[in-house]
Amino acid sequence: MKKKNKKVNAAILIIGNEILSGRTQDKNISFISNWLNLKCGILVNEVRIIPDLEKVIVKSILELSKNFNYVFTTGGIGPTHDDITAQSISRAFKIKYEYHKEAFQILENYYGKSNFNDGRKKMAKMPRGSKLIYNPSSAAPGFIIKNVLSFPGVPSILNSMIENCTRYLIKGSKIHSKTINLFTVESNISKKLGLIQKKYKKFVDIGSYPFFRLGKIGVSIVTRSTSKVKLQDVKRELVKLVKLKKIQILKI
Amino acid sequence: MKKKNKKVNAAILIIGNEILSGRTQDKNISFISNWLNLKCGILVNEVRIIPDLEKVIVKSILELSKNFNYVFTTGGIGPTHDDITAQSISRAFKIKYEYHKEAFQILENYYGKSNFNDGRKKMAKMPRGSKLIYNPSSAAPGFIIKNVLSFPGVPSILNSMIENCTRYLIKGSKIHSKTINLFTVESNISKKLGLIQKKYKKFVDIGSYPFFRLGKIGVSIVTRSTSKVKLQDVKRELVKLVKLKKIQILKI
Repeated sequence: MKKKNKKVNAAILIIGNEILSGRTQDKNISFISNWLNLKCGILVNEVRIIPDLEKVIVKSILELSKNFNYVFTTGGIGPTHDDITAQSISRAFKIKYEYHKEAFQILENYYGKSNFNDGRKKMAKMPRGSKLIYNPSSAAPGFIIKNVLSFPGVPSILNSMIENCTRYLIKGSKIHSKTINLFTVESNISKKLGLIQKKYKKFVDIGSYPFFRLGKIGVSIVTRSTSKVKLQDVKRELVKLVKLKKIQILKI
Repeated sequence: MKKKNKKVNAAILIIGNEILSGRTQDKNISFISNWLNLKCGILVNEVRIIPDLEKVIVKSILELSKNFNYVFTTGGIGPTHDDITAQSISRAFKIKYEYHKEAFQILENYYGKSNFNDGRKKMAKMPRGSKLIYNPSSAAPGFIIKNVLSFPGVPSILNSMIENCTRYLIKGSKIHSKTINLFTVESNISKKLGLIQKKYKKFVDIGSYPFFRLGKIGVSIVTRSTSKVKLQDVKRELVKLVKLKKIQILKI
């Protein structure tokens, strides 16, 4: 039986002034995108980075949750005053913002009753009806409400949690990828490459990215498709082009 | 004479499937944001990463150019089929997409008449009336049209060009920043920190970011303001809080 080609997409919403200001180099975008791609066949189609402002979070959540199958948020679910992701998502969906019983229990057990202060309790508050995304490294869970999944911003913690959201996701068709690295310049192959892309428009995405390696200029041709067969067809055309232009191949 | 506190903001629009897919780790966001912040007193208030799709680029350009003083785009101004930033910006603003005389001349001189093929010529096409942002490392210029500034996506090239857009920008008031690194956990200080933020809401942004260093858990308190005096006031309050809670200071 032939499997249907199922496209599932997502957006990532990075919430945090520290990324916007340039103080912190984001590491979550490529991690989440790669994970969704390889493990779930889900393509990330948009990323936004926004400040810790309720109005902006509400607007972004409403837009992105409408336009994409899933929205992954990172940041703003800790104990401090600038952690307002959960309450903003509640506001966006007009859902009550309240203690989640199981999350409260998890955090109380983790910190112990006598150390369970208001800041820590805050991490158990989320939109009513949320399901938990368990956190094996620092207890405080993420949550999923409607099609929005919220994770903390600290990369090591996020990385330890991501597998725990798998059960909530509908998977897409696996996306295959082939890269050819050539010692040439983009403008030498751009015309023919454009024609190949046009021919396979419906099936294969072809990207072209300059690089500098071993003291030489080169181009990475990245092809991506849910069809291995079409990917192989494109590879054949690219090899033909490379031979025609007598281009040196770095890696195929 | 007292200088007026002038707020100027910007958005960054990263155009490129390679960043969205997670294949390439973006380096331009923190570079541009830091540069705007330190050199121009301009705050980045939103970042979007979008695919090489005209419809999406047009929509983002229109939204961001309306909502922010400046929009910085990166990527999609090279010679290949997936480089569609200039034509998409033309489409967004309903401005003719055509050869820029000076850009054409620069590129023709750089490559030599006999090597100036169609792909390379394409890099001289931009919205009519654009002003050039010169490129000291690989010739192909960026451009500014209305409040949108377009740069290439390769970080080393972008870095070499950024100073050349300074003359087109209206500067904002300098943004000062102070960071205090403490060996404590966020939830230990979250309540008092929230009160300090509330008190200085109009003048100082206070962010709180957990870190792991020297085998210990800590929190960076980052304060930012256009007023050095208010920043000093907040620092005094933070030092008081640290003493009260007997917290070890890593760096102040």
